[in-house]
Amino acid sequence: MDKLFHIESGKEVAFHNNATYCVGTGRMGLALHKEYQEQLKMVQEEIGFSHIRGHGLFCDDMAIYQEYKDAEGNIVSEYKFTYLDRVMDDYLSLNIRPFLELGFMPEKLASGDQTVFYWKGNVTPPVSYERWAALVQETLRHLIKRYGEAEVTGWPIEVWNEPNLKGFWKDADMKEYFKLYEYTANAIKAVNKNFKVGGPAICGVDDEVWMTEFLEFVKSSQAPLDFVTRHHYTIHPPEREGHYEYARLGDPDAGLKELNTTRKIVDSFPEFQGMHIHITEFNTAYIPDSPLHDTNRNAAYIAYLLSKLGEDNESYSYWTFGDVFEERGVPYTPFHGGFGLVANGLVPKPTFWTFKFFRELQGKCVCRERELVVVQKQDKYCGVAWNLNYDNTGEILNITCELPAGDEEYCLVQKIVDEKHCNPLKVWHDLGEPANPGTAQLKLLRESAQPLVTTQRLKGSAGTVAVALELQQNAVVYFEIFEAPVSSDRGYDYNKVMNSLDISVE
Amino acid sequence: MDKLFHIESGKEVAFHNNATYCVGTGRMGLALHKEYQEQLKMVQEEIGFSHIRGHGLFCDDMAIYQEYKDAEGNIVSEYKFTYLDRVMDDYLSLNIRPFLELGFMPEKLASGDQTVFYWKGNVTPPVSYERWAALVQETLRHLIKRYGEAEVTGWPIEVWNEPNLKGFWKDADMKEYFKLYEYTANAIKAVNKNFKVGGPAICGVDDEVWMTEFLEFVKSSQAPLDFVTRHHYTIHPPEREGHYEYARLGDPDAGLKELNTTRKIVDSFPEFQGMHIHITEFNTAYIPDSPLHDTNRNAAYIAYLLSKLGEDNESYSYWTFGDVFEERGVPYTPFHGGFGLVANGLVPKPTFWTFKFFRELQGKCVCRERELVVVQKQDKYCGVAWNLNYDNTGEILNITCELPAGDEEYCLVQKIVDEKHCNPLKVWHDLGEPANPGTAQLKLLRESAQPLVTTQRLKGSAGTVAVALELQQNAVVYFEIFEAPVSSDRGYDYNKVMNSLDISVE
Amino acid sequence: MDKLFHIESGKEVAFHNNATYCVGTGRMGLALHKEYQEQLKMVQEEIGFSHIRGHGLFCDDMAIYQEYKDAEGNIVSEYKFTYLDRVMDDYLSLNIRPFLELGFMPEKLASGDQTVFYWKGNVTPPVSYERWAALVQETLRHLIKRYGEAEVTGWPIEVWNEPNLKGFWKDADMKEYFKLYEYTANAIKAVNKNFKVGGPAICGVDDEVWMTEFLEFVKSSQAPLDFVTRHHYTIHPPEREGHYEYARLGDPDAGLKELNTTRKIVDSFPEFQGMHIHITEFNTAYIPDSPLHDTNRNAAYIAYLLSKLGEDNESYSYWTFGDVFEERGVPYTPFHGGFGLVANGLVPKPTFWTFKFFRELQGKCVCRERELVVVQKQDKYCGVAWNLNYDNTGEILNITCELPAGDEEYCLVQKIVDEKHCNPLKVWHDLGEPANPGTAQLKLLRESAQPLVTTQRLKGSAGTVAVALELQQNAVVYFEIFEAPVSSDRGYDYNKVMNSLDISVE
Amino acid sequence: MDKLFHIESGKEVAFHNNATYCVGTGRMGLALHKEYQEQLKMVQEEIGFSHIRGHGLFCDDMAIYQEYKDAEGNIVSEYKFTYLDRVMDDYLSLNIRPFLELGFMPEKLASGDQTVFYWKGNVTPPVSYERWAALVQETLRHLIKRYGEAEVTGWPIEVWNEPNLKGFWKDADMKEYFKLYEYTANAIKAVNKNFKVGGPAICGVDDEVWMTEFLEFVKSSQAPLDFVTRHHYTIHPPEREGHYEYARLGDPDAGLKELNTTRKIVDSFPEFQGMHIHITEFNTAYIPDSPLHDTNRNAAYIAYLLSKLGEDNESYSYWTFGDVFEERGVPYTPFHGGFGLVANGLVPKPTFWTFKFFRELQGKCVCRERELVVVQKQDKYCGVAWNLNYDNTGEILNITCELPAGDEEYCLVQKIVDEKHCNPLKVWHDLGEPANPGTAQLKLLRESAQPLVTTQRLKGSAGTVAVALELQQNAVVYFEIFEAPVSSDRGYDYNKVMNSLDISVE
Repeated sequence: MDKLFHIESGKEVAFHNNATYCVGTGRMGLALHKEYQEQLKMVQEEIGFSHIRGHGLFCDDMAIYQEYKDAEGNIVSEYKFTYLDRVMDDYLSLNIRPFLELGFMPEKLASGDQTVFYWKGNVTPPVSYERWAALVQETLRHLIKRYGEAEVTGWPIEVWNEPNLKGFWKDADMKEYFKLYEYTANAIKAVNKNFKVGGPAICGVDDEVWMTEFLEFVKSSQAPLDFVTRHHYTIHPPEREGHYEYARLGDPDAGLKELNTTRKIVDSFPEFQGMHIHITEFNTAYIPDSPLHDTNRNAAYIAYLLSKLGEDNESYSYWTFGDVFEERGVPYTPFHGGFGLVANGLVPKPTFWTFKFFRELQGKCVCRERELVVVQKQDKYCGVAWNLNYDNTGEILNITCELPAGDEEYCLVQKIVDEKHCNPLKVWHDLGEPANPGTAQLKLLRESAQPLVTTQRLKGSAGTVAVALELQQNAVVYFEIFEAPVSSDRGYDYNKVMNSLDISVE
Repeated sequence: MDKLFHIESGKEVAFHNNATYCVGTGRMGLALHKEYQEQLKMVQEEIGFSHIRGHGLFCDDMAIYQEYKDAEGNIVSEYKFTYLDRVMDDYLSLNIRPFLELGFMPEKLASGDQTVFYWKGNVTPPVSYERWAALVQETLRHLIKRYGEAEVTGWPIEVWNEPNLKGFWKDADMKEYFKLYEYTANAIKAVNKNFKVGGPAICGVDDEVWMTEFLEFVKSSQAPLDFVTRHHYTIHPPEREGHYEYARLGDPDAGLKELNTTRKIVDSFPEFQGMHIHITEFNTAYIPDSPLHDTNRNAAYIAYLLSKLGEDNESYSYWTFGDVFEERGVPYTPFHGGFGLVANGLVPKPTFWTFKFFRELQGKCVCRERELVVVQKQDKYCGVAWNLNYDNTGEILNITCELPAGDEEYCLVQKIVDEKHCNPLKVWHDLGEPANPGTAQLKLLRESAQPLVTTQRLKGSAGTVAVALELQQNAVVYFEIFEAPVSSDRGYDYNKVMNSLDISVE
Repeated sequence: MDKLFHIESGKEVAFHNNATYCVGTGRMGLALHKEYQEQLKMVQEEIGFSHIRGHGLFCDDMAIYQEYKDAEGNIVSEYKFTYLDRVMDDYLSLNIRPFLELGFMPEKLASGDQTVFYWKGNVTPPVSYERWAALVQETLRHLIKRYGEAEVTGWPIEVWNEPNLKGFWKDADMKEYFKLYEYTANAIKAVNKNFKVGGPAICGVDDEVWMTEFLEFVKSSQAPLDFVTRHHYTIHPPEREGHYEYARLGDPDAGLKELNTTRKIVDSFPEFQGMHIHITEFNTAYIPDSPLHDTNRNAAYIAYLLSKLGEDNESYSYWTFGDVFEERGVPYTPFHGGFGLVANGLVPKPTFWTFKFFRELQGKCVCRERELVVVQKQDKYCGVAWNLNYDNTGEILNITCELPAGDEEYCLVQKIVDEKHCNPLKVWHDLGEPANPGTAQLKLLRESAQPLVTTQRLKGSAGTVAVALELQQNAVVYFEIFEAPVSSDRGYDYNKVMNSLDISVE
Repeated sequence: MDKLFHIESGKEVAFHNNATYCVGTGRMGLALHKEYQEQLKMVQEEIGFSHIRGHGLFCDDMAIYQEYKDAEGNIVSEYKFTYLDRVMDDYLSLNIRPFLELGFMPEKLASGDQTVFYWKGNVTPPVSYERWAALVQETLRHLIKRYGEAEVTGWPIEVWNEPNLKGFWKDADMKEYFKLYEYTANAIKAVNKNFKVGGPAICGVDDEVWMTEFLEFVKSSQAPLDFVTRHHYTIHPPEREGHYEYARLGDPDAGLKELNTTRKIVDSFPEFQGMHIHITEFNTAYIPDSPLHDTNRNAAYIAYLLSKLGEDNESYSYWTFGDVFEERGVPYTPFHGGFGLVANGLVPKPTFWTFKFFRELQGKCVCRERELVVVQKQDKYCGVAWNLNYDNTGEILNITCELPAGDEEYCLVQKIVDEKHCNPLKVWHDLGEPANPGTAQLKLLRESAQPLVTTQRLKGSAGTVAVALELQQNAVVYFEIFEAPVSSDRGYDYNKVMNSLDISVE
């Protein structure tokens, strides 16, 4: 397919790009792992998210909540912040801050024994709301003491995760969740009014009912609410085979429409109109063993979403940054379809680059189309293009993007991620799908997972310079173009160099 | 052009591959530089040479030789090993050892004031051969004391550099050089008989005369001689423009024939028959501002030389590993045509990869042709192919290499260096030829200077597996092929993954 | 107290020093932690143990053993080596190798639900010995495939841990353990005869009976046995208060006598006479919350043990290298009395230095006394001295050690660890016992945890040089002495420097 | 001697502490060295200076100034910023900025051949003031282009070095210097008015005359002048022996009086009253082979100066940060009396710690005496004390410092640098004064060069807490004191731990 976009000088297009505001993570206890920290370091060095959100703050492997009986037999709560501090120290050293999710229930505080995931997060309400509130408060006070009030009160707080699912909250008991929310939100504000708190952290099941009821409850109860949260996934129900689940992608626009409905519900309350909505989880598939996640296809699909999600939402947190993740157990292989931007063994997946590329899209937006976003910076134009042909039958997309220009010479830089040039999944498959690749294989996988970099000289004429991009199926391409007159050193002549390379056999 | 090579099972072909025995360097004083050490670290991590050879051990910036007058007015020699130790410590920490070149003359020992290069190496005979011999001996004794006899006596020693040129040795005085050689070689052996010493370190000017006379002299004088050394460059006389020199490549086979003549001269002496010849310098152009060095062309030309130089020579030391080099002054730009495998700013040039690829060619050689070498290792075949079409007019070379195989499935890995995929010179030109690229430009240059990695699955049939390589002009391609049956984890089906990526809009 | 030791030239004293053969560790799952790996790195860089042994190889957090039911409803075993490889890769990268302990029981293989520790290691016999044996064999085969036969068959293997305690093995059932041992040892040898296997890994409860019965069983059953293992702790039963246990040190010689009894039992079997005994765990207290471990006292006590344990045992593995350890839960503070040589936050404890110092005691032993060991190396004498006054009432120990010497000048280097100079526990207490010290406090703790280094010039006379050491209570002092004539540079005069430092006010 | 200082609550004492504003360095070309950068990195990590000043910006090893003749035979200037950018990049990466000294003269611009130092800096006026001005301007323009206007115009600029000495400026020709100054200052301002420029960079020879004449000239010529600069050294003329010079320390107060005279001269001009004076070099001895620099004595002397220099001067730049320095040639040994805070081999000298300690003295000064400075910070008091007994005969100084306090418990931390605890010069001497210490010796030297850290618990009473310091001769001691109530974890009792360490032999 061929597309032509002509960009007028001075034109500006709306684009709220907050792709790097937050990213998801496996449960907090896994943040103690070396591999986790190495993956996060790689992500931060290349992409640089501002916040990180995941489950498990209060789960027992973090060991925060403790109890003992005193001489009179009374239960006394104790708190142990050894691991919490270790994780937070590491986060801050990587210049990322938590978007705190409060949950799940410490066993000693739990009213039941229902758990979620391989790692058994307890999902029952607290046996004592007083002790739960104290746990939240003591944790926040400890963090303030260690990191300072200005720092810690800037960390957004979300109450629980997906209470609209029975798996995550006993009986998906809405009333009980509202109680939890109110108790918790008030407890937080009692520590410091500057904290921002939100909910209901729902996914797309009965979401309209839940959102409406939640806002009604907040309105009537006067519980504090600073922002609204929900999740967003875009597949049809998957089919399981052995250790894996095969999911089919859904219509991205249908998904965006659901989010718009949420936006409208929130705005329908005068009290909440325009309140920030944070998508605290999003991805294509909602399962951590969906091979789809590792494909170039996923990268192109997410590129489209990143061009759209800011329309109705303040932020949207890709679930997750890396593949140190155990919700369905420890993975068998590095390319098992995990959520991560990075595969185990420090191999960036194609979607990693989608985020790295969108990170560059700061500045004045001059073009936002179904397959292209371009922004203007002080001294250059930057753009991201993608080829998400719905039937995935291999059609190439040729984009011509005419940008305002003078008569100068320009340099066009492209970084190309497609199935041929940056496709570690295929390389891994070609290697025989090794479950535990060794050092040399991992090095090869990393080398194969880099974008192809190309440069080109262009010349402006008649007020424009034409950037021509050829996108293979599922390609995501970053480009930038800037004035680059050749200022050769005295005596240097590139053409002469290239034209005198024949071998002269006398 | 199309070429087919059919390799019989069990066949073996002669190939003495010693590409990584030694590499050249800018003068020793530059080894104190941080950029020098970083470039060397990069080279050692990726290629891993065994030895390093360059000029300047006794030049005044190394500050080894000192003198003062005692109370009676006698000259007393002193030695200062502060910088020597620093350099040798760094070399050994990078697992590289010096191939010691003795020279040039400390000013206080010099009989004249003739110098060579921007950095003014004094090239006159010693004013006192006794003090020269003492300098050599004290230096070796110091090294032995610091690093141990076993270590240091394993470092080969060469006497002076290119005495057959007036620029490097006053009047190119043959007799005086022989005197220097004899004095020095005897002084070395007096320290420790295990040292290996050689000369005459000549380049290709009057080389037949010099080599013959040198061997005659050694024979008659009984001076110690453990190996013979000479240099090898392959261009026609260049033309200067501004800061640069434009050279035309010569016939590589004509050059190899010259080396064969040297081999024959040496072998014509019964005393020296079969004695090792070390090419202690080689490259295409012999000038450090020849843009040719930075091209993909250079990489392909050197690949051919590496496939041939072992026929007559024990080793051949590429001049040089990096571009921290000042013979004609400090470079104006990173791509100034320096000798280095690495451009300033830590950008690997195409020829860097030629060496990295040849390093892998250890094992039983099964094919050595004008454009291809293949070796067999325990569990795979590795090969390097190149396309050195003499007229450089763009013809593609298609190689089919049929290797012995069973009926199994194989994985073919290719790493491709060509003008499109790994050509930092072009990227630098496209950027406008910045004299001092900043951090972001250097990062881009490094990213653009990596080989393209691709993989492919092949199937053996009828006793062979056919490796098909398409080489662009001046391409150098590394490949390896090995059995790689797909052992999928339970439930994982790559084809199913790839075939269910369409978007289903309901 | 004053002690004089006069050492005759040429004298040699028996001393089997194997202090760095092996070290203990928290459960293997904790080896995934970043803090664990950083502590181990520090230990390896400074001390350098050869092997590492701990529990938990087969516990569920390592996720090795998996099962599913096939279409016919049969149980099929699967193995997941993702985490095992990660841990082993890291161990080998730090140049340490596992001393494999086989245990505990994966839940799916367990015959009961009895567990040990906060982290719930299942301690019941396998529900199927066939599947247990297969688990052992598949694990070893996987390791051989990944790391090579030569490497992996060099890793010693021990069957289970402390089966003579009910807590570690259901009912401390001796017969069942022998069955486990026989099954397992035979399974190992079936994989590769070169593996070395041992048991019974008992601690000091009923140890004489267990050792005798075990050897009788091996003898009669012909089960493979390559070495014998047991544990060694030296405290009286402790008293608990809150989170801590206060233990009193026992007589070290009484403990050594117990070990000698084990030696005699083994030697009483002609088949096993002289067989290696590995103490696969030792320390003072056997509990991970015993403040004793953090003291200088512990360092001095362990020094004495290290001077003695080699008399009857091949090796002795200090339990443990670091404080990433969860047997009684996550620690509340860095100085909680953990087993580790290193406190959390990378602070070396006094006992760390005992091991670092003993590591130097390689060479010909010339003196081994209750408070001193001295060895002779090629060019120096090295020694370790300690002051373990039993009543801990503060008496200083003055040691004079007369060593064979010429009339030369010598340099004596001392590294002093005592309650005044290298006592991070006291510094932590003085800081107010912070539960979670911040960056600046940790830096201070690390600075305070370094030995005091002092040097001194001595002169030999009458054939000896006298080393005088003043040891504060619980001091452990390393020293070395070597010839060091002053070879001043021309014009340098140290005494003149020091004698002209007055300020002259004119 | 005993001293008591009682500090009233609320009292404030004047103290302009700018110890870390600037530090000196060997010539700029040495900044290319790896050892130089490693030393600077160490200095920046521990001390953190803001600026760095040294000679050699325009010397030929930096290779900035170039010329060629065009076709008509005219001289054309060229500029080569390859090395300058490398140095500036490294400086900025270590968070230090240049205090630019313009000099010396590129050979091609020089009017004569007089040079200074082993490395031969040309000290003659320019042959063309136009080309000199162009050189200055092109260099500044290049820096602005690379690093931005805001960054670069913040770098202070000083014209030449010590023109009042014949060695540094031909004939110490005052008139010629004023010409140079005027030309240069105007050229700088023509590039950007925001640059700050100063002079006359004189040392203490004829300084009063020079300073007065310089200011008269500036006044009359209207040449730009933003600040005044001079140097400061405090020894009597030294005596040479072999490679070394033995200097006697002068009265520090006499030196300070000279500086006060400069202050008065400046203030005597209404136009310049209160103008900043930057001491762009200071140290004890002004020679780089004065063993004094390596002593603890030097550290104590400098401590006193740092407590005083801010009285009349805006800043004072210690000459120099490290010992990569070649003014009198390459050093023979690491402890050769170089200017550096760090000895070659990365060993901090005692004076290093003086700067590190003074760096902490930010906040409200509450005490400034001849041997003590104390400041109050938000949550603690920090102080530095020193014992500079003039006759250096070994007298101990006991200081009691009574600080305002409540009844709480306090922790006192001391870091002690004295001849016993942090004296690498003595250790090096005791080792035999090795000219080229190996890795193990350097490690020992580094270990011996750390302050002794001790802590102590104190209790406030009657409104004060008394800090008692015992200072050995030439000691420099840093201390801080802060509230530190012991908050023991449940069950932890430090005294119980320490009181139950006896060995119970039953």
